[in-house]
Amino acid sequence: MDSRNGPASETPLDAEIESFFDSAPPLKDSAGIIKKLKEFIEFNSTPPGKGSPRRVVCVTSGGTTVPLEQRCVRFIDNFSSGNRGATSTEYFIKAGYAVIFLYRRGSFQPYCQSLPEDLLLECFECSDDSTIQVHQPHTEAVKRAVRDHHAAVAGGQLLKLPFTTIFEYLQMLQSIAMSMRDLGSHAVFYLAAAVSDFYVPWESMAEHKIQSASGPLDMRLVQVPKMLLALKKEWAPMAFCISFKLETDSNILLEKAEMAREKYRMHMVVANELSTRKEEVTVVTGNERILVCRDKTRADSDVEEPLIELIVSRHSAYVKDSGL
Amino acid sequence: MDSRNGPASETPLDAEIESFFDSAPPLKDSAGIIKKLKEFIEFNSTPPGKGSPRRVVCVTSGGTTVPLEQRCVRFIDNFSSGNRGATSTEYFIKAGYAVIFLYRRGSFQPYCQSLPEDLLLECFECSDDSTIQVHQPHTEAVKRAVRDHHAAVAGGQLLKLPFTTIFEYLQMLQSIAMSMRDLGSHAVFYLAAAVSDFYVPWESMAEHKIQSASGPLDMRLVQVPKMLLALKKEWAPMAFCISFKLETDSNILLEKAEMAREKYRMHMVVANELSTRKEEVTVVTGNERILVCRDKTRADSDVEEPLIELIVSRHSAYVKDSGL
Repeated sequence: MDSRNGPASETPLDAEIESFFDSAPPLKDSAGIIKKLKEFIEFNSTPPGKGSPRRVVCVTSGGTTVPLEQRCVRFIDNFSSGNRGATSTEYFIKAGYAVIFLYRRGSFQPYCQSLPEDLLLECFECSDDSTIQVHQPHTEAVKRAVRDHHAAVAGGQLLKLPFTTIFEYLQMLQSIAMSMRDLGSHAVFYLAAAVSDFYVPWESMAEHKIQSASGPLDMRLVQVPKMLLALKKEWAPMAFCISFKLETDSNILLEKAEMAREKYRMHMVVANELSTRKEEVTVVTGNERILVCRDKTRADSDVEEPLIELIVSRHSAYVKDSGL
Repeated sequence: MDSRNGPASETPLDAEIESFFDSAPPLKDSAGIIKKLKEFIEFNSTPPGKGSPRRVVCVTSGGTTVPLEQRCVRFIDNFSSGNRGATSTEYFIKAGYAVIFLYRRGSFQPYCQSLPEDLLLECFECSDDSTIQVHQPHTEAVKRAVRDHHAAVAGGQLLKLPFTTIFEYLQMLQSIAMSMRDLGSHAVFYLAAAVSDFYVPWESMAEHKIQSASGPLDMRLVQVPKMLLALKKEWAPMAFCISFKLETDSNILLEKAEMAREKYRMHMVVANELSTRKEEVTVVTGNERILVCRDKTRADSDVEEPLIELIVSRHSAYVKDSGL
């Protein structure tokens, strides 16, 4: 169950990962999470009234935080609204996949993106007879959010698991990957979360709030070990893996995406630039670079629709090739 | 309107503040915010059908962020759910105050604290005839949230202004204080936001995302200038001011609260310890230390109710003493 007890041939990477997990504060209700995962995967292996088992995708979404103090008052956060992960989840569900949605608390949720920020104030009103009504311009969006969200969860096609810190995220990703291992090539990882590159190891962290009285604050953060290699090598070796590369500088983006694909043996890397990421992305896969754009003739189109279509088709080819 | 053009006798503090505001990215729609503030304060100076003008309190809530890159992917965040500010806002409104609620985007909102995190999924359902219904256990909480929230905003007693970064927060606080200056002793500042102590000056910030390839990350953050002194000395000298001190270490808490009260000439400092802050706080004021506890005989009581009661009574005495 645990990569710490993995193969004896310890590379420097294994040692780094071991040290990260050893020093991480233990995940709360780890047994409960593993139980939920097991039930979800079993249910989707033999969904009621369906002939064939559903493929399962783990979609990660939102940014991770790095605590700077053990009793956490301050932390470093990686910006990500979670819009990509939430929207992609809807298209995966539509395509028949079961989705394990590993999301940052407070980030965007599937089926809710078109709702206003101040939901209760802007969408609802209390009429004279004290019933709750939905404001006219938002009626359809609210109905869709409630109906589709419920249908996905009640139908056993959507399991939502929240995280906040980098420690929670990586421990949960490991549990999910281990649970999905037996699905072989039917398992997909769509790693859209913005994972911190740097962290402060738990033991070297201040126990109490850092005091501000004594001049400037100097901090040393160390690199988070690259878990993608462990995912590919040990946790779920047969899974189809898609990772993301976000840069603000388009000059280095594709090169870095290509490097990531080779280094971590991803099947696809989705390269996105911060300012244009809602219009287009470039998918780097094998020796191809595929530009994926949203349908600009439709105002309400998004880039996730053609992106998930491409991924589903490549995943199908991968399942076929792997002969399972 | 601007402390930069304040008194010529420039102390080191003034220079620090000037440098902070000079280097900050300009606030978006600053003119629109000032217009809203002016209208809100004018409305509450002569509220329709009321004899006397309302007192105005600026409640700040939630944590500020410190961007580490200009095109912000990473930032340091100060933890604060915003629960204290949101709940206090309700009691101030109940006591007849008009509230300018300066809150962190995504933090708790007044009248919404008893609602579950995943609101749409847990509170609502879509019935067969496609109308939206509220789930039974949450019916009253949702109705109350919608009804009271609307009533406060529609009645002109609540103005909500969101911020994210330390730059936005301090510029908005300055605009609010300047707008409230003429209210004299009728103005209150209830500064519950968790403001960053350290920041990275805008010019010294990396333009693009910091690259992770080159080993550990060393950062130097400098202290945010103490704006409370500027608030008291220049922005709104007659206002009644309450600030907060949060520590995780109870041994240094009261001493630090006392120091803050003297240094920044606050009327009251609310001292709270992270682990017990929902049960009790200590109010440091003049030579008193007043322990304020929630009513433990009621399961649904909170510490904000007696706290705001104490503040309102002390503020009334202050208004009387100042002879306005």
